[in-house]
Amino acid sequence: MKALFVVCDGMADRPVEELGRKTPLQVAETPNMDALAGKGITGIVDPVAPGVPPGSDTANMALLGYDPYEHYTGRGGLEALGVGLDLAPTDVAFRCNFATLSPSGLVEDRRAGRIKSQHAAQLAEALRGVAEEVGSEFGIRVEFVPTVEHRAVVVLRGEGLSRAVSDTDPGEAGRPVKPCAPLDGTPEARRTAQLVNALSERFREVLEAHPLNEELPKPANAVLFRGAGTVPRLKPLGELYGIRGACISAVALIRGVCRAAGLELLDVPGATGSYDTDLNAKFSWAVRALDGGADFVFLHVKATDLASHDHAVDKKVELIERIDDALGSALNALDLGGDVYVLVTADHTTSLRTGNHEGDPVPVALAGPEVRPDRVDRFDEMSCASGGLCRLRGKDLMPILMNLLGRVKKFGF
Amino acid sequence: MKALFVVCDGMADRPVEELGRKTPLQVAETPNMDALAGKGITGIVDPVAPGVPPGSDTANMALLGYDPYEHYTGRGGLEALGVGLDLAPTDVAFRCNFATLSPSGLVEDRRAGRIKSQHAAQLAEALRGVAEEVGSEFGIRVEFVPTVEHRAVVVLRGEGLSRAVSDTDPGEAGRPVKPCAPLDGTPEARRTAQLVNALSERFREVLEAHPLNEELPKPANAVLFRGAGTVPRLKPLGELYGIRGACISAVALIRGVCRAAGLELLDVPGATGSYDTDLNAKFSWAVRALDGGADFVFLHVKATDLASHDHAVDKKVELIERIDDALGSALNALDLGGDVYVLVTADHTTSLRTGNHEGDPVPVALAGPEVRPDRVDRFDEMSCASGGLCRLRGKDLMPILMNLLGRVKKFGF
Repeated sequence: MKALFVVCDGMADRPVEELGRKTPLQVAETPNMDALAGKGITGIVDPVAPGVPPGSDTANMALLGYDPYEHYTGRGGLEALGVGLDLAPTDVAFRCNFATLSPSGLVEDRRAGRIKSQHAAQLAEALRGVAEEVGSEFGIRVEFVPTVEHRAVVVLRGEGLSRAVSDTDPGEAGRPVKPCAPLDGTPEARRTAQLVNALSERFREVLEAHPLNEELPKPANAVLFRGAGTVPRLKPLGELYGIRGACISAVALIRGVCRAAGLELLDVPGATGSYDTDLNAKFSWAVRALDGGADFVFLHVKATDLASHDHAVDKKVELIERIDDALGSALNALDLGGDVYVLVTADHTTSLRTGNHEGDPVPVALAGPEVRPDRVDRFDEMSCASGGLCRLRGKDLMPILMNLLGRVKKFGF
Repeated sequence: MKALFVVCDGMADRPVEELGRKTPLQVAETPNMDALAGKGITGIVDPVAPGVPPGSDTANMALLGYDPYEHYTGRGGLEALGVGLDLAPTDVAFRCNFATLSPSGLVEDRRAGRIKSQHAAQLAEALRGVAEEVGSEFGIRVEFVPTVEHRAVVVLRGEGLSRAVSDTDPGEAGRPVKPCAPLDGTPEARRTAQLVNALSERFREVLEAHPLNEELPKPANAVLFRGAGTVPRLKPLGELYGIRGACISAVALIRGVCRAAGLELLDVPGATGSYDTDLNAKFSWAVRALDGGADFVFLHVKATDLASHDHAVDKKVELIERIDDALGSALNALDLGGDVYVLVTADHTTSLRTGNHEGDPVPVALAGPEVRPDRVDRFDEMSCASGGLCRLRGKDLMPILMNLLGRVKKFGF
């Protein structure tokens, strides 16, 4: 028995005016998701809790079966794991951005015009020395790792650090860089905040003086820090359920969550985490992994969330239809009557109107040899609300799925 | 975005023999509640937990979003807040009754024939001195505050007190006054019980000798103590959600819960907390508050609960229809398609047959611009059980509503 767990980021929505007060899932043509709902059992899921807008990190942690209220230790650690770094339990990591500051010190562009990766790499090279230098003043090893475009991860390695520090990223353009502040009264938090502020200042000096920035339309003359985090201590899924599992996602944060859960990260060519991602490649890699011995594949598609953040109504409908199409090919290749379970859900609601993650529940459909089918045969937020799974929490899905795979130990005698 | 949260006390019921095994909500003509259900999303709610009969205090605390298992600290503190007293964290308060004792010392009438408020005030005046005197023997300041008819609040102010003491109120007529006993092994509980017993005894001496009691048909010759409580430490709704909220209720206990949650208490003329309450006034004040800048109004109607306690079947049906009528006017005045959400529910089931609060869930309907509508178009216990909200806990409703108002912070990134 094996399982494919499909998560479409922010796919769930609220009724949308432009769609006649229907949701994108209600409007999109989704014969394959509908067939899955029709064959299987459906329900609605509060990723973290009713009414609480989840982050992508907490939501996917919950979907993998871990209570985020118990296990979440900030974004930075997960982001670092996701870009392939290894973290000691005492290390503190940040998600960072190259940004453009105006001469008066206001953040002009939080992404430095989406600076090219190779340019960011050049600037990062120049930051290496000063990072080491500032770190050594604190007895801490500092790593600056550029990833894609404006994105980077900073890891502070050593003892006596804390993740209880605030962001320097003001969150929107037109505001000054914020000083990093300790969020509790511990000396560790104070020290970490001092270190971040020192790095922030010295990075700015180095970047301001860097010749590359004279050529860039939007100079990357600052680094913004946010999401201080450590690596969460999750018991790996392999240990919990005795499964061999893999993750297909192009998003560092999601890859980090999956890696923390002990899933193998597959690198699918053409998977971009954006609109242009190769959905067919992702789904066919999933099928191949399941054919090749994996018991569990967690497949995450980012683009639906982007469409909501961009308020792109038609784009979101179109993406859902494209996902449905790719899912269809996978369903054809897998034996739902035999040894495969397929679950489709979203990690949260992202509203096309607000552009934000919202706290509404998400639909779920689960089909496979031994589920108890219900009468729902449409995959959308309202139809699934009358499904046989009723209303669950995100963290409940994995035990249900793993039990169908015969992988959950009895509690009691 | 703003919200009206309507709570009809004990409105939910079980199937009633006299109503052809239907519930009052099923039998009553409720076009407005039904319209709300039809436009919106419905569900059922366990105010505190499945099968657990909630008190009015714990239920309304939960409906305001606070887990009563975590936050409830007894009735007395809430009752004291509700009558306008301020309590320090160490103060212990009691809900008290003037009562009539027979010559043999049995409780003859737990409400002293529902003694008139002005008579109770006269007797309370006479208790002031002895309250101070007994208190000072314990180093404690004692306040005796009569409220309405037989009702009063006693506050013990000082250090070294405990709310872990039993009631002196035997709960029904024909029994002796119970001694107040410590409920745990702490010296604080022992001392508090001693103080209550001393007050109880000295109050009786003073009341027995009071000339007014010779004139009363049922002499108020004793004070019964119950519901020892401190003030709960709730983070105010204003702080949790950044809202300005108001409470419309004529019941001290509910007003106390709302005040503990940081809601402003509105005094609506004609609101009595009884059968004769002016429902139209309450609903029109709610509309006015929302028009006048409140983000949230919590409107509580007591009378439905009274009808169940009184086993008054027709009365309960009639009250539900009157509430529906008043709700209708409010719905006409509010813009459900625009910027207002309206939620209607009950704080618990009160059975017409048993006359008690019961642990069955209550129906809920929620309508407003961005809810996901379901197919339910009747507001009653059974119809709402197939609604799109499925089955929730009382404490889940506020996050859901506040999220629709854009007031809940994301958890994670």
